[in-house]
Amino acid sequence: MAHLNRIHQVWAEGRTAVNGWIAVPSVLGVEAMAKAGWDALTVDMQHGTADYADLLSILPVIEKSGAAPVVRVPWLDEAAIMRALDAGALGIIAPMIETREDTERLVSTCRYPPDGTRSFGPVRARLAWGDDYASIANQEVLVFAMVETRLAVANLDAILSVPGLSGIYVGPSDLSLSHGFQPGFDRTEPDMLALIADIRARSAARGLRCCLHCGSPVYAARAAAEGMDLVTIGSDARFVEAGAMACINQFRESADNKT
Amino acid sequence: MAHLNRIHQVWAEGRTAVNGWIAVPSVLGVEAMAKAGWDALTVDMQHGTADYADLLSILPVIEKSGAAPVVRVPWLDEAAIMRALDAGALGIIAPMIETREDTERLVSTCRYPPDGTRSFGPVRARLAWGDDYASIANQEVLVFAMVETRLAVANLDAILSVPGLSGIYVGPSDLSLSHGFQPGFDRTEPDMLALIADIRARSAARGLRCCLHCGSPVYAARAAAEGMDLVTIGSDARFVEAGAMACINQFRESADNKT
Amino acid sequence: MAHLNRIHQVWAEGRTAVNGWIAVPSVLGVEAMAKAGWDALTVDMQHGTADYADLLSILPVIEKSGAAPVVRVPWLDEAAIMRALDAGALGIIAPMIETREDTERLVSTCRYPPDGTRSFGPVRARLAWGDDYASIANQEVLVFAMVETRLAVANLDAILSVPGLSGIYVGPSDLSLSHGFQPGFDRTEPDMLALIADIRARSAARGLRCCLHCGSPVYAARAAAEGMDLVTIGSDARFVEAGAMACINQFRESADNKT
Amino acid sequence: MAHLNRIHQVWAEGRTAVNGWIAVPSVLGVEAMAKAGWDALTVDMQHGTADYADLLSILPVIEKSGAAPVVRVPWLDEAAIMRALDAGALGIIAPMIETREDTERLVSTCRYPPDGTRSFGPVRARLAWGDDYASIANQEVLVFAMVETRLAVANLDAILSVPGLSGIYVGPSDLSLSHGFQPGFDRTEPDMLALIADIRARSAARGLRCCLHCGSPVYAARAAAEGMDLVTIGSDARFVEAGAMACINQFRESADNKT
Amino acid sequence: MAHLNRIHQVWAEGRTAVNGWIAVPSVLGVEAMAKAGWDALTVDMQHGTADYADLLSILPVIEKSGAAPVVRVPWLDEAAIMRALDAGALGIIAPMIETREDTERLVSTCRYPPDGTRSFGPVRARLAWGDDYASIANQEVLVFAMVETRLAVANLDAILSVPGLSGIYVGPSDLSLSHGFQPGFDRTEPDMLALIADIRARSAARGLRCCLHCGSPVYAARAAAEGMDLVTIGSDARFVEAGAMACINQFRESADNKT
Amino acid sequence: MAHLNRIHQVWAEGRTAVNGWIAVPSVLGVEAMAKAGWDALTVDMQHGTADYADLLSILPVIEKSGAAPVVRVPWLDEAAIMRALDAGALGIIAPMIETREDTERLVSTCRYPPDGTRSFGPVRARLAWGDDYASIANQEVLVFAMVETRLAVANLDAILSVPGLSGIYVGPSDLSLSHGFQPGFDRTEPDMLALIADIRARSAARGLRCCLHCGSPVYAARAAAEGMDLVTIGSDARFVEAGAMACINQFRESADNKT
Repeated sequence: MAHLNRIHQVWAEGRTAVNGWIAVPSVLGVEAMAKAGWDALTVDMQHGTADYADLLSILPVIEKSGAAPVVRVPWLDEAAIMRALDAGALGIIAPMIETREDTERLVSTCRYPPDGTRSFGPVRARLAWGDDYASIANQEVLVFAMVETRLAVANLDAILSVPGLSGIYVGPSDLSLSHGFQPGFDRTEPDMLALIADIRARSAARGLRCCLHCGSPVYAARAAAEGMDLVTIGSDARFVEAGAMACINQFRESADNKT
Repeated sequence: MAHLNRIHQVWAEGRTAVNGWIAVPSVLGVEAMAKAGWDALTVDMQHGTADYADLLSILPVIEKSGAAPVVRVPWLDEAAIMRALDAGALGIIAPMIETREDTERLVSTCRYPPDGTRSFGPVRARLAWGDDYASIANQEVLVFAMVETRLAVANLDAILSVPGLSGIYVGPSDLSLSHGFQPGFDRTEPDMLALIADIRARSAARGLRCCLHCGSPVYAARAAAEGMDLVTIGSDARFVEAGAMACINQFRESADNKT
Repeated sequence: MAHLNRIHQVWAEGRTAVNGWIAVPSVLGVEAMAKAGWDALTVDMQHGTADYADLLSILPVIEKSGAAPVVRVPWLDEAAIMRALDAGALGIIAPMIETREDTERLVSTCRYPPDGTRSFGPVRARLAWGDDYASIANQEVLVFAMVETRLAVANLDAILSVPGLSGIYVGPSDLSLSHGFQPGFDRTEPDMLALIADIRARSAARGLRCCLHCGSPVYAARAAAEGMDLVTIGSDARFVEAGAMACINQFRESADNKT
Repeated sequence: MAHLNRIHQVWAEGRTAVNGWIAVPSVLGVEAMAKAGWDALTVDMQHGTADYADLLSILPVIEKSGAAPVVRVPWLDEAAIMRALDAGALGIIAPMIETREDTERLVSTCRYPPDGTRSFGPVRARLAWGDDYASIANQEVLVFAMVETRLAVANLDAILSVPGLSGIYVGPSDLSLSHGFQPGFDRTEPDMLALIADIRARSAARGLRCCLHCGSPVYAARAAAEGMDLVTIGSDARFVEAGAMACINQFRESADNKT
Repeated sequence: MAHLNRIHQVWAEGRTAVNGWIAVPSVLGVEAMAKAGWDALTVDMQHGTADYADLLSILPVIEKSGAAPVVRVPWLDEAAIMRALDAGALGIIAPMIETREDTERLVSTCRYPPDGTRSFGPVRARLAWGDDYASIANQEVLVFAMVETRLAVANLDAILSVPGLSGIYVGPSDLSLSHGFQPGFDRTEPDMLALIADIRARSAARGLRCCLHCGSPVYAARAAAEGMDLVTIGSDARFVEAGAMACINQFRESADNKT
Repeated sequence: MAHLNRIHQVWAEGRTAVNGWIAVPSVLGVEAMAKAGWDALTVDMQHGTADYADLLSILPVIEKSGAAPVVRVPWLDEAAIMRALDAGALGIIAPMIETREDTERLVSTCRYPPDGTRSFGPVRARLAWGDDYASIANQEVLVFAMVETRLAVANLDAILSVPGLSGIYVGPSDLSLSHGFQPGFDRTEPDMLALIADIRARSAARGLRCCLHCGSPVYAARAAAEGMDLVTIGSDARFVEAGAMACINQFRESADNKT
């Protein structure tokens, strides 16, 4: 049977999924993003500015584009996770997972009984994904634990051992900060590179997926080549900031060249 | 006395004002735009997605950045114009001005008596610009008539003759469409170039300003060099769309090069 | 070529289009409506409670359902019409059209040059309907004039003679009120039935479409059988009100039967 | 003294309270619901789409209708519960209560000292219910624990023993799912019927109320006859979906009969 | 028969109606205002910050307080007026009425046929005011023309002669500005006092009401004593600004006295 | 180096900071408040009506006024605290802190590693406060624990001993309620006065700040004279309620004096 979740489809084809990042919860902005053809688009409710009410207007336009709708929830919180799923998300990225207990709680929250304890009431998900949503949700919904602290790294095997987890989402900014580096994406320090490669390898060894948040397409392409299953690149807010800055700079350079 | 309106300041320094365009009424997106250092930022209520309520959250962040807050109203409409001014806008761009009567109505709507018929009640403008707002508004507020149809071009002298008008804002997309070309910015057809140059020259001859909506910084720099007083470049929505597209393309190229 | 606008498709198949009516601008409510499989869904900005900002969240879910997105604008107003079209609407219903001049203004507002004077800037429409939107918009967008007063009836031939008009939308409530009856749908008075039939016949004679706002499916089915090209039935707000009332009544009856 | 909370009034009259369910947080939709004359209307923040900001616009229209305003919070969470109460809710339904500790935390959160630990600051509740709100809140506010898992059933006596609890709200969908059945309302399985009856009987034996979420008025009437103190029937979103579906079906049948 | 509109009730008792002014469209703020016991509360859509969507949440809380809900529309505009009435307003204040034609258009827009041309569809008004709303609306709805320019004064008799007009609302700020004074309320210039008294007397001579916008309760009380039928005092935004300023000043004075 | 946070500046000058309180999340209302010149303005997400989305529009106008933007979060909750900080808040007031563990969790949530566990992603904070936000945040952000229960008082020394805490915020209403008094500000009972003085003294002894929520400027001035480091006075909602009530009362008194 075909998957509703495009990330599953991409993986079935043996490709790396390319994920866009939404910090500005605007219908127009998301559609402008979606036109590029991402495999998934993640609405960031942690460090982005989307709130629950935004999901109701944003998730439909993501679905319409064919990209898989994913939500990074603000915290490991039952209400936030279940409401995002009920609103139609087919993937959950949960920040700051550090222990086996965190992971069990995360997975349980995303899965209907008997696999977990998700409460039943897929108010928008049923309308978005069909009347058989209840029977397919546990298969279609992807659950990613963010590994981004020293403690999480120390507990990685315990985290990976939780049944039902789809994979790890590596947050390089917090991970670097917790290891004594400045925050930021696209790490080049040998220690960080080794650490990220190790997380990926141990995930793969368990048959789980590994995802990496990247700042540039070149870095993301290298990560994909090295085996990352999903790479996130940039964000809408960064495209605006970089686009405006480049625009002003090019205007000034062109103007200077004229005089 | 120093001007509150940065466009006035820029012109006093003999420079071309550089204007950014807001189609997505998001606080975060506008602040990401504003960081680049525009002289003005225009909230587009005609073809952009901002509504009146958005002005209340967007204009303060534009003001905070130092850029002049400008609003393109959806139509020549007293309610829309007066509410934008009461909300704090220091410039109005009115679309589809075609006659002397249109222009008189536009200017009158933007000016307090005895210069015009603007109704008094600067609910947010007074809080934003100070208790003496009533006495400075007629000087600080810029009023631009969009010339974008054949009829408007035919009536240009009549339009330019209306006292109190600050200048013309050239909309190249509609202007081209009305002259039998495809819509779009950054025209290169000799007829269109001559027409735009003529509008600018006749505005200048009357002591009025001329502004041009541009698609690229290089084109805008040339327009500035040729005497345009204000150039608009791109928009937030275009930066998102172009940034996402470039990101995906670079990712694919990098990935292809690897294999 | 296939039409983007499902109403065009339905008419090409020789069927009557069935239109749902949205008074409550809620994503969830609209998706609950859309599930029934309407040919079109009209967001009512006149007597419904949708405002411009609601279009941005509602139109995508209508599009996703396959139904044609239509907007009833609050009044014959360039700003309201052009913004609804730029937001993605493929049909406009304009209330209280009474003269040839009204109709010419309405049609002109909905059509790009050279057919009309619609200003170019399809901010969301391009993202929703594709990069060739500019070249197909004049064909795909349907324009309906509401005939709902004595004056409009008197001017019907003049209204119907305006090139580019798609058809007439009969508003039976205002039409009845202006003819001395109580307001309401599903008229049974012989005079009103004859009047509505006459409007339909004269529209058809001009090769134009005729649409009728109905209160019940049975009445709508009869209207369709009699040749109406589009029938609207009920509204989301009425389904809530009627559903709640029926629910309470059935509860009380069941409870009474028990005792 | 008369109760402010209509559920208390209804129970004082020896009747079963009839509760409507709000999944769409729209003023118009809620008023269309309220017209039917419910004893209570519950805004569902768990599986419905209401967020905190919606409470501020929805609760007043519920109050104006005379129905008791109740909120189902998304989770056992102090912030969510206290904010709903401060916004004017006179009843709280908390999902997934499973233990005595859960119940104690729930009740404590809803009661001012010395009965509990609710923080003082009834920002809207005082304006809605009067200056003596502080002295009546602990009596007027109803607190319901949802029993909807095997664990909750196992701990039912412990749950019921917590002082200050008003009663149990049975969620048949999750309860069925946790007992190996498909989710859904209006259970007919003997095991489920017996279980629900047992929950009701044990609640009554403790002097506590029991409430049941129902899908149809007929089932609800039977539940009321069997002693349920409050029955919920349907929801606004279901009325829209069912109304639209029935409308389309009746139209098609009528049309078929014609041909 | 009792009036639904409290202004009618107050006038039937021979009293001056006291009207509060809403510039901040917040449910909490309006309820904090409403507690004081106004006869009417006017939502200002012209110089205040309320937009159409705000009416849906604000009008119910005004109704709940017993005050008559009035809307000052942003301009003489059919869409704005009819939508405010459909949302439940029982009074319309229209700014900048200057001629008999303006007044006829205003009154016609507010009255159902045969008295006027208001379009039928009282989407929220029926739910707010009852199923017989259609038959009482023309009696209950009050229509006030703002007289605030020299031209309006010159045309006062023509304005007052329009059947169906309820009265004049004097806007002293614009009226002063158009007569060469600084804008502001609570005029003391003999010319302005005479002008306002004349407007009132001529309104009364026609059997129409006269209303005055005031800045202070003392001035308003004098205006009431002199025969004004409705006096507006202050606004929510002014109460916040004055309250905060007084608070800071008193704090500083108390602190200075200590040292 | 100059502080970004005005509270730090005020303290460096040896003054008491004066804090305003925002219960109504309106741009206009906050700007009307801000005009008075507060040292800080706190958006109350616990008992006020601000939700996360409001922070995005309200914090910029607070920043623009020069006042320090502070947020009282609804509860000790990682998501709420980190999102408020990412939105630009420079101070956090956390309610109902009762133990050393609560305090450690609070402080850790507000501080980037190695001082704490705040997750990195200052989406708006970087745009608001500059590109070096990451390196200054731990110094600039103030963290206040509310002490408002008997348990908190009993644990005061443990609370004060947590490194990184900025100080205590005394909530007199809950503190009184938990000590058997009626809730309310501006306590005069000897026991409460002694208790508050003791909290202040013990905070000062640890080198920490102490803040008090006050109802009147006179009481606040006394508290400041007695050594409170920050005093909050009133709130926007109270200014509206008191302003409206005073207005109506003065009108009636003036009217009575006339007759």
